Amino acid sequence: MKPSLTVIKVGGAVVEDEAQLTQLLHDFTAIQGPKILVHGGGRRATKIAERLGIETKMVDGRRITDAEMLEVVTMVYGGLVNKNVVARLQALGCDAIGLTGADANILLSQKRPVKMVNGVPVDYGYVGDVKQASGAKLSHFIDAGLIPVVAPLTHDGQGHMLNTNADTMASETAKAMAVAGYDVTLIYAFEKPGVLRNADDDSSVIATINHADFETYKADGTISGGMLPKIENALAAIDAGVQRVIITKATAIDGQHGTVITE
Amino acid sequence: MKPSLTVIKVGGAVVEDEAQLTQLLHDFTAIQGPKILVHGGGRRATKIAERLGIETKMVDGRRITDAEMLEVVTMVYGGLVNKNVVARLQALGCDAIGLTGADANILLSQKRPVKMVNGVPVDYGYVGDVKQASGAKLSHFIDAGLIPVVAPLTHDGQGHMLNTNADTMASETAKAMAVAGYDVTLIYAFEKPGVLRNADDDSSVIATINHADFETYKADGTISGGMLPKIENALAAIDAGVQRVIITKATAIDGQHGTVITE
Repeated sequence: MKPSLTVIKVGGAVVEDEAQLTQLLHDFTAIQGPKILVHGGGRRATKIAERLGIETKMVDGRRITDAEMLEVVTMVYGGLVNKNVVARLQALGCDAIGLTGADANILLSQKRPVKMVNGVPVDYGYVGDVKQASGAKLSHFIDAGLIPVVAPLTHDGQGHMLNTNADTMASETAKAMAVAGYDVTLIYAFEKPGVLRNADDDSSVIATINHADFETYKADGTISGGMLPKIENALAAIDAGVQRVIITKATAIDGQHGTVITE
Repeated sequence: MKPSLTVIKVGGAVVEDEAQLTQLLHDFTAIQGPKILVHGGGRRATKIAERLGIETKMVDGRRITDAEMLEVVTMVYGGLVNKNVVARLQALGCDAIGLTGADANILLSQKRPVKMVNGVPVDYGYVGDVKQASGAKLSHFIDAGLIPVVAPLTHDGQGHMLNTNADTMASETAKAMAVAGYDVTLIYAFEKPGVLRNADDDSSVIATINHADFETYKADGTISGGMLPKIENALAAIDAGVQRVIITKATAIDGQHGTVITE
């Protein structure tokens, strides 16, 4: 039987709210067995950038990362958010270790090429598309009793950090751990109780979504916006051998709530 | 025979200068055997703080770290400086891993109590005095082929990061590795070629300094200011079993230059 491992991805809104973060870290600590926490931090980065007089540019919900913004996200994700989460987990008895993709070369990316978005070429700047995740290195840390806390940053192998989508970091990490021989549960924790049929009704959680369901919901507009790449990431993880992907509220990460993504 | 290990401490002035950093990282990469890099970053933190409208307060050359400044140093040391150094070492084929004292609980501190400085009580704020360094954890990373890159931050075990002097981080790390069974060489790399007899004359490097020499130089004013705590850290490291401590220029970290601190 494969050893089980849980990957929790928690977004910036939760990490940046004191009460929600406190509960999340307690709940994360309570999860049995090996585990990995992947965090965001976008709102905090936007605030710090604003204080530094750096304008935040978004295209289709994705941040354009110029050289100055790369410095901001490297500071905020890799330093401020990551180290505070690590220190707080340590205080809860979790032997956490903060990592970006550059550390121990766990996640290597390539800078995203210019892409056409709605017919317009968009240069996302210093943004990384993951090309290799090292399950062996992460397994080594886990075997040593450590709990990786992963910031949404990778590197290009040529000396540059790259801003990387936290949902993608989580699915790439989960996939690498599945390949490394773990029975992996990937949980996307955010502010809603799951994927909703009706965005205004928290009781309208869709219980399960498979590839065919996703196509249907996408076509009829039930699922749209930021939820699209999240589910695409989730389905890609399932296709790559991750056992279970669950999209759920950050206060309900026990694996018993939310939307289950299946093949 | 004990395995040898080199700990290099490099200050903010070097880390923040592109040309000097490039050479330092090349030279560091060339060092044979296990090694650890400890870096500063104070000038960068001061600049970012200024841009954020946060005033830098110093007492006797030491930064007062209030809650806002703690956020800045956590960002700058743990994020910006640390991750860029790690990414650049990765590009040079060094499998670097960035760490603060909170990561894997390698350096635990206590918040510095209010101290009398020149007859006045000074609260340094969120500053850590190291109380425990884990050579076992660092050895584990080294045995796995990783090269620790340590930022000058620790944690208090109660969920808070603490700003920590980089020279102290280096000597505490070196001491822990000596206790863990390594033959340790600790090299303080900075902008001068060593401890100078005459601050204005770079050719006046003092070849060796022991406890007795230090007392003499301190009494006659040859050594003063920021060099005092650096040499105190160096002597403490020697007393605790570190084999060699060398104070040298950042462009001469091969162990053949600078001032050698002895018992």
